[in-house]
Amino acid sequence: MSSNKMFDVVKEDLVKLEKEMLAVVQSPIELITEIGTHLVNSGGKRLRPALYFLAVRCGNSVDEKNIMPLAAAIEMIHMASLVHDDVIDSADMRRGTPTANSKWGNQISILSGDYLFAKAFSLIAKQNYSSRVTMILAQLICDLSEGEIIQNKETFRASKDKSEYYARIAKKTANFIAASCELGAIVAKLPEKEIDALRQYGEAIGMAFQITDDLLDLTATQEEIGKPAGNDILQGIVTLPVIHALEVSPNSEELQAILKTRDMSNDLLSRALDIVQATDAVEYARGKVDEYITKAYDVLPSSIPTAVFEAYQLAADSIRIRTY
Amino acid sequence: MSSNKMFDVVKEDLVKLEKEMLAVVQSPIELITEIGTHLVNSGGKRLRPALYFLAVRCGNSVDEKNIMPLAAAIEMIHMASLVHDDVIDSADMRRGTPTANSKWGNQISILSGDYLFAKAFSLIAKQNYSSRVTMILAQLICDLSEGEIIQNKETFRASKDKSEYYARIAKKTANFIAASCELGAIVAKLPEKEIDALRQYGEAIGMAFQITDDLLDLTATQEEIGKPAGNDILQGIVTLPVIHALEVSPNSEELQAILKTRDMSNDLLSRALDIVQATDAVEYARGKVDEYITKAYDVLPSSIPTAVFEAYQLAADSIRIRTY
Repeated sequence: MSSNKMFDVVKEDLVKLEKEMLAVVQSPIELITEIGTHLVNSGGKRLRPALYFLAVRCGNSVDEKNIMPLAAAIEMIHMASLVHDDVIDSADMRRGTPTANSKWGNQISILSGDYLFAKAFSLIAKQNYSSRVTMILAQLICDLSEGEIIQNKETFRASKDKSEYYARIAKKTANFIAASCELGAIVAKLPEKEIDALRQYGEAIGMAFQITDDLLDLTATQEEIGKPAGNDILQGIVTLPVIHALEVSPNSEELQAILKTRDMSNDLLSRALDIVQATDAVEYARGKVDEYITKAYDVLPSSIPTAVFEAYQLAADSIRIRTY
Repeated sequence: MSSNKMFDVVKEDLVKLEKEMLAVVQSPIELITEIGTHLVNSGGKRLRPALYFLAVRCGNSVDEKNIMPLAAAIEMIHMASLVHDDVIDSADMRRGTPTANSKWGNQISILSGDYLFAKAFSLIAKQNYSSRVTMILAQLICDLSEGEIIQNKETFRASKDKSEYYARIAKKTANFIAASCELGAIVAKLPEKEIDALRQYGEAIGMAFQITDDLLDLTATQEEIGKPAGNDILQGIVTLPVIHALEVSPNSEELQAILKTRDMSNDLLSRALDIVQATDAVEYARGKVDEYITKAYDVLPSSIPTAVFEAYQLAADSIRIRTY
C-alpha cells in the first residue's frame, strides 16, 4: 500500500522510517539485532505510519525531530503484536517470509515481541513526548490485547452477536488505525477539533479495513491472500458476513453446527462457504464497508491541506477495492 | 518476604498496593478481570514494590498521589514477565497456584501479559510521571527480555563464560531490582547521589538474589522450593556454581557432556549434581553472594532515615539466609 500513489505525499517520510527502524533494532545482543532486522525487512504495508505521517503533514508548526521516533514506535508496536499473533496462530509464513516463530521458536519470539513493545515506549520516553502520547500508545495495546482475548474466547461458539463483532474489531484493528491518525495530528499541533476528526476518520477506515479483511478471507483465492479461503472459519472465528448468514440463511442451523466443529474437514468447510455465499452475506458486508468509507469521507476536515485530504480519500477508496 | 519484619516500615503501603492492583485489573472484559484478579491474588513476595516503597519513605517532599500507581506499574510489569515466563517454560504451577497458561492456555496468557505491560504504561502516563520514569520502566523490560533471550539462546551449550552469566543475571534480575529502588528515590525527590546509591544497592542485592536462587536450585529440596533440585540443569541453563564446577572439577568433561544432554535421565542429573557438589562450587557461589551483600551494605547512604536504612540492611541479610 505504501508504494501506491496515495502515499506519495509522505514517500520520503516512509523511506526515512525504514532507516530509523533498522537503527532502533540494533542491540548489543546480536540475536536481537538479527530478529529485529528480519522483522523490519519482512516489510508490511506501513499503513499506520503512513496515515500518521499524513496527519503530521497537516501541521505548520511541526517539530521535525518529534516526527520519526513516534512513527517508529507505532510500527514497532504493530510488529510486536504480529510476532505474538504468529506465535498464537502457529503461523509459519507472513507476507511470503518465514515468521519469527518459525525461524527462532516460540520462546524467543514471545520475548522479542516484549522487547519491541518496550523499545517503542523507550523511544517515546527518550524523545520526551507528552503523557498524552504515551497514554494513547499504552491504551491501544490494551485494546489490541482485549480484542484478541475476546476473539480467542469466542472461537468455535458460532455467536450471532453483531455488536460483539463490531466491538472486537474496533479494539483489535480500528482503534490502532484511529490512534495513528490522532497521534500525527497531535504531533502536528492541530486544533482539538481536527485531532478528533482525524481520529474518527481513522476509526472509520479501520472498521472498513477489518471488514474487508474478513470478506477477503471468505472470497479471495489462495493466490491472492496466500492462504486458502475460509481460514477464519477453520479457526472458529465468526466474522460479519458469516454472522449475517447465520441470521438470514435457511440453512442457519447446519451452518452453526459446522462453525462449532474443531479440526473441520475440507468438505465441511466448503459446505459452510457455500451456505454463506448462497445468502447476501458478501453484499451485506460490502455495504457496511461502504458505509464506513462514506463516514470516513464525511468526517475528513476540509481545513487540512488539499494534498493530504486527497491522499486520505485515496486511502479510504483503496480499502473498498482491496483484493489482497 | 513482604510479611517479614524488614518491611514493617512500609506495611501499610504494601496493603494499599494490593487494593490498587485489584482495582487496576478491573476491565469491561470479564475474562481480563478474572485473569488479573487471579494473578494479583496468587501473591508473590512483592519484593520490588517493597524496596520501592522503602526508597519513597526516604523523602520529605513526596507527592502522595504519585506513590501508588508507580508501585502497581512495577509489580504489574513483574507479573506480566512471569506470565510470559510460565508460557515459555510450560510451567503448570507457581507458588502453589495454577499458572495462567495452565488455566487459560498459552494464547490468552501471551495476550494477558501484553495487556499487563501496556496497563503499566497507561498507569504511568495517566499520573503524568516524568519521561525519566517511563524510560526506566521501558529500559528494564528491554533488559529483562534481552537477559531471557541470551539465556534461551545459551541453553544446552554448557558455556563456561562467567562474564556471560553475570551479564545475563544483571539484565534478567538485578536491573529490575535496581530500578525499583531508583524509581522510589526519584519519586521521593532525593538528591542524584542518593538516587544513584540506592540504585547500586538494588543492583547488588539483585545479583545476590539471583545467585542465591541459582544456588537453591542445586541445593534445596523439593519441599523447600516446590520443584526437584537441578531444574536449571534439566533445562540446559548453567549457573554460577555449575560454571565454577566446570572450571575446577576433575570430572569437568563428563559434567560438560551431561549439561549438553536434552531430556536427561534422573541418573544423569544425579551424577551432574554429585560432580558439582564434590567441588567447592556451592561455597564459591555463597562467597559471591556475600561479596554482593557487603557491597549493598557499603553503598547504602547513611543520610537516609534510620528505619529505612535498617530495613534495607535486613532485606540484604534475608537474601543471604534465604532457603526458599
